[in-house]
Amino acid sequence: MRQFIVIGHDAPTTPEFPLDDLAGASGRLDVLCRCVTSAFFLSHAIREDVRVHVVLSDEYTVRFEGSDLRRLNPDERSTAALVRAALEERAEAIGHIPVETSPGVSIVRMGFEATLDAVDGTVVQLHEDGDPVVDVDPPSDPVFVLSDHNDFTPDEADLLDDAATERVRLGPNALHADHAITVAHNYLDTDGFRSY
Amino acid sequence: MRQFIVIGHDAPTTPEFPLDDLAGASGRLDVLCRCVTSAFFLSHAIREDVRVHVVLSDEYTVRFEGSDLRRLNPDERSTAALVRAALEERAEAIGHIPVETSPGVSIVRMGFEATLDAVDGTVVQLHEDGDPVVDVDPPSDPVFVLSDHNDFTPDEADLLDDAATERVRLGPNALHADHAITVAHNYLDTDGFRSY
Repeated sequence: MRQFIVIGHDAPTTPEFPLDDLAGASGRLDVLCRCVTSAFFLSHAIREDVRVHVVLSDEYTVRFEGSDLRRLNPDERSTAALVRAALEERAEAIGHIPVETSPGVSIVRMGFEATLDAVDGTVVQLHEDGDPVVDVDPPSDPVFVLSDHNDFTPDEADLLDDAATERVRLGPNALHADHAITVAHNYLDTDGFRSY
Repeated sequence: MRQFIVIGHDAPTTPEFPLDDLAGASGRLDVLCRCVTSAFFLSHAIREDVRVHVVLSDEYTVRFEGSDLRRLNPDERSTAALVRAALEERAEAIGHIPVETSPGVSIVRMGFEATLDAVDGTVVQLHEDGDPVVDVDPPSDPVFVLSDHNDFTPDEADLLDDAATERVRLGPNALHADHAITVAHNYLDTDGFRSY
């Protein structure tokens, strides 16, 4: 299984955000939604062996489970609507028990640290200052951790330093998180990490 | 220079389309907008040496010129608004003379064939049935031709067969056009096309 944790530093934690202004008043939910699309969509299929954890301002995490997803569309607005529907049921998320709010979509009251602790797999940090992928063997169950339009905070970076087996970069240019997910998939699809 | 021609088969040719329903009533403008974002955005920069031609229902083409772009944001809705602004001035586009409607954005009354004829560079078709990239040397001025959520029509495929030096695929899975653009950039960024 491939997993992606995406940290939304400015993301909403209540459903009162405008679907018409995802890049502004909705805390850059646009980039988080594109991350979900990049993680799951093939041309005519969903990648079923993928799980995405979208961390909303370190308070809630919305999980997308590829094998169960039924109502995911590739555009930003409809994905944001799934996040909004999840936030509408946030009061039901008690302790660390997730609540499913749409097929394959659930919300859990966990920030980044708890999400990182709970995840099963080998943590790989995608970062512009990471090692070239040529030096890294692809793990069989990778967990990629990405940040939205902001850098990781010092606390997040410390947590990642403890958890991550590798900190890699996928090319010479720093990419948007959603584009990094696409490139990571392509590397794994095509014989894993290789030289550049 | 890297260029991308993206064919929008169902795309609007008048500005009366809803920004709130890009994936539905707006003819899948969402995927075309994501292609523009994938073509231009680095993490903290625009790729200046890129030009994108978005063909709208074989009637108009909206061109995005990386070196001149000033008001491009990465979300779908704001990019769609640039397309709408271009279409609002479509009456000014006479013959094959482009009309600039925003810095780096222009509209020209050209369908796919005229756009393909006018483009300078080496045409590469990205296609799931193409040759593995391992067999292809990257040209220095590649022109990638992609289709939206639909396959190329037989006429488009014939035009491409005539124009394209190569028809390649970037991996074992068929990708959305915007994801294919991201992967194509990564290949070119990282020593060009390689084995998989």
